[in-house]
Amino acid sequence: MSNRKAKKQKIFKPKARTPRGFRDMSGDELSLQQSMIATISSVYERYGFAALDTSAFEYADALGKFLPDDDRPNEGVFALEDDDGQWMSLRYDLTAPLARYVAEHYDALPKPLRRFQWGPVWRNEKPGPGRYRQFLQIDADTVGAGNMAADAEICMMAADCMAALGIETGDYLVRINNRKIMDGLLHAIGLDSDSDDYENQRLTILRAMDKFDRLGLDGVRDLLGAGRKDDSGDFTKGAGLDDKQIEQVAAMVSIQANNRLAVIDAMEALVGGSQAGADGVAELREMDALFTALGYQADRLAIDASIVRGLGYYTGPVYEIELTFDAEDENGDITRFGSVGGGGRYDDLVKRFKGVEIPATGISIGVSRLAAALTMLGKTQGSQADPLIVVLVMDKETRPALMQLVQNLRQAGLRAELYIGDSAMKAQLRYADLRNARLVIIEGEDERQAGVVTLKDLELGKQQSVEIEDNAEWRASAHAQQQVPRDALIDTIKQILA
Amino acid sequence: MSNRKAKKQKIFKPKARTPRGFRDMSGDELSLQQSMIATISSVYERYGFAALDTSAFEYADALGKFLPDDDRPNEGVFALEDDDGQWMSLRYDLTAPLARYVAEHYDALPKPLRRFQWGPVWRNEKPGPGRYRQFLQIDADTVGAGNMAADAEICMMAADCMAALGIETGDYLVRINNRKIMDGLLHAIGLDSDSDDYENQRLTILRAMDKFDRLGLDGVRDLLGAGRKDDSGDFTKGAGLDDKQIEQVAAMVSIQANNRLAVIDAMEALVGGSQAGADGVAELREMDALFTALGYQADRLAIDASIVRGLGYYTGPVYEIELTFDAEDENGDITRFGSVGGGGRYDDLVKRFKGVEIPATGISIGVSRLAAALTMLGKTQGSQADPLIVVLVMDKETRPALMQLVQNLRQAGLRAELYIGDSAMKAQLRYADLRNARLVIIEGEDERQAGVVTLKDLELGKQQSVEIEDNAEWRASAHAQQQVPRDALIDTIKQILA
Repeated sequence: MSNRKAKKQKIFKPKARTPRGFRDMSGDELSLQQSMIATISSVYERYGFAALDTSAFEYADALGKFLPDDDRPNEGVFALEDDDGQWMSLRYDLTAPLARYVAEHYDALPKPLRRFQWGPVWRNEKPGPGRYRQFLQIDADTVGAGNMAADAEICMMAADCMAALGIETGDYLVRINNRKIMDGLLHAIGLDSDSDDYENQRLTILRAMDKFDRLGLDGVRDLLGAGRKDDSGDFTKGAGLDDKQIEQVAAMVSIQANNRLAVIDAMEALVGGSQAGADGVAELREMDALFTALGYQADRLAIDASIVRGLGYYTGPVYEIELTFDAEDENGDITRFGSVGGGGRYDDLVKRFKGVEIPATGISIGVSRLAAALTMLGKTQGSQADPLIVVLVMDKETRPALMQLVQNLRQAGLRAELYIGDSAMKAQLRYADLRNARLVIIEGEDERQAGVVTLKDLELGKQQSVEIEDNAEWRASAHAQQQVPRDALIDTIKQILA
Repeated sequence: MSNRKAKKQKIFKPKARTPRGFRDMSGDELSLQQSMIATISSVYERYGFAALDTSAFEYADALGKFLPDDDRPNEGVFALEDDDGQWMSLRYDLTAPLARYVAEHYDALPKPLRRFQWGPVWRNEKPGPGRYRQFLQIDADTVGAGNMAADAEICMMAADCMAALGIETGDYLVRINNRKIMDGLLHAIGLDSDSDDYENQRLTILRAMDKFDRLGLDGVRDLLGAGRKDDSGDFTKGAGLDDKQIEQVAAMVSIQANNRLAVIDAMEALVGGSQAGADGVAELREMDALFTALGYQADRLAIDASIVRGLGYYTGPVYEIELTFDAEDENGDITRFGSVGGGGRYDDLVKRFKGVEIPATGISIGVSRLAAALTMLGKTQGSQADPLIVVLVMDKETRPALMQLVQNLRQAGLRAELYIGDSAMKAQLRYADLRNARLVIIEGEDERQAGVVTLKDLELGKQQSVEIEDNAEWRASAHAQQQVPRDALIDTIKQILA
């Protein structure tokens, strides 16, 4: 390197740091996410969903607004201007790229199209603890099928995904509702869908119902009426319904029954008088019939009137994948783990591109939240690497022979690596520790001449060190290390690991 | 949806299109890439490389310049300003994020660190045919090991990756050189490394040597001397060497020998007088000894004096993974397929962050170019899905029973799906065609009562249609379809697919 370059580097030394709200991932966490993605992908594929990958960028005008919780088109996205003056945005979900893809290739695609996609999405939002500006989603959608078999299939597949990840029945539940029932309920309580205030009031009521899980019935009642002051003293304005209206909505969110049909019957009693309500009830009955025919009981797929699933663009069935075991929330309170994904039917997917309505239904699963759940449940088997063996280097001249030894270990199906640096024994042992190695192999000059190697069991060593409580004694401990004839090495290792 | 919204959508209807220079991927192409990534990852993992994932963004000041072919720091990247005024860029390769990661976490990392990473990288460059602005790389690097065992390991691993993908020995070759030999050569021909023009002349000479494969020895001679006019009439200024100098460089790039040691000996004769040259020769000898000890012959790992590997930051061994079979280049000429990846040693990886030199060596493989090669070679086994069975729907009332049938087929290990739309039989058959289904199952009312289904072999049907050359006759063809008792269905399908 020239002197000129060296000088330039002295002028500015950047600080090494991840950008605000972004993160690195490695080790067990990364393995778990990748193994989860592989598992879910294979369930999706088994159901006939074909993989699609789209680029990170979409034209800003094509992104549209598919964020379920948001009504902002281009706020909250990362956007930049291309050198031809067109604005491009990083995708904020996998639904908007699907809409663009379907509209672009509609004539050539199989219809209905079952597609799945996973990958990072980006949100230009304020980061916080556990809230990143890039995260992974894995979605499956069926486009071009207006019937309930498509929705039922997605719900059964969602349950199968949870089962495939090792989550027991009882620890997860796909909770299903239908937007038309909501519309029927608003009609039943006498709201006028032509009034200027309808859209606002509707959102306020949906938001209130959505909080049933967290606030209970009294909280929902407050939010449906005059409003609610929370523990911090903040006041949320209510929907302004009268007492009779409030009781009807409260009756809906609090429906409890032993089986799906009983829930649907109770819903029907509340909304059956309206066309939307009757349609919603019929759709739920159709889904229930398919679930029952295929052996999916209410302990996996439940009908639940309190499921609102965001405020966005859903037009029919909505579903939420919930993990029902107890966990601590961000405030340290014990509560059910909660949603790891969900979705629903959104029949105006490509309307903004093509002007025609094309029915679509699908789910999105949040990978990192589900990974956190699996870690809590201890369901991380299969994603963990085999025990690692590190071969240390006493004398650099012996590297070729030691690399050959490592190759032999690998060919015997073991996970082995050579220490590849130039440091002394102490640093090599620290390396093996940091790598979480199970076994270490050392071959000194005397040992080589005697045809043996030293095999050190770091795990056993650690156990003994807990018992011995003396570092010097641990280092000297004979039990954690043994001399093994070179030709008995592989068998000995296999016995230790067995 | 309200009228207000419908009106708004009429105002602007965006065109559905991928942004300029970006693309979608699906089907066999996507499966192949994913299966390649899985294969290469597992080779990397077997060698002890640990997976790392970093976010798409890095702070622009931290990106540095690791593009081997480029000397531009922030040109050619996609950058945007965060709301706190800091500039962020999408990574243009996986080396720059590694440098930042190592500098950020240096104390806590195992040293040496073997890490691998795969993922998209972004280049803000002019797109062209086959030249996209987002593409996948899969890298492996060893950081903190200054010795040749680290480089030798990476080269052997690169060869193992090619073998694991099913590429035969003889169709690939890892070609290895050493930058110090280049420096020794420049010293040997009498260039003054302290002169103002040295850096420029050095780059011009390296660029000329890099073109040996394409232009042959005469072309390289022109570029080392006065310059060269290409077929289109464009003139490239040469390095301005005199005849004696040109012959020494030409002798270097054109070294041919039967084995690695003979190549190294010939190199030594040309550069051995300089310290850099002698160091480079010693390093190559050390790598050769490791290759030989581990049984990697010159038909997989070759020493090659014409390997330059970009112009960038390499400081020692450089290596290029080449596919040597014949293929058509962009001009339609038959030539060897060429490079699918490469790398080398770059000992100033984190220097710009930490001020200290930390040795590093690694490779980067370009996923899409390698996928194109595998497709040409027909090595796409293992990435292709099982034959697909599509169950058609004659009567919507029978959907629950047909879904149950599909579930039974899946449980028997078959890949089956239900047609999930609402269209008539003709559209359903078109769907099965577009999905590349192998078999179609139809169950009409009469068949259901007789306990049989119709099984249609679309592949056999297509074969017959080629022979029959009559569409009507094909549709009526009895051979391509048969009636099968419901309880013999799975066995019959397995026989057909066997």
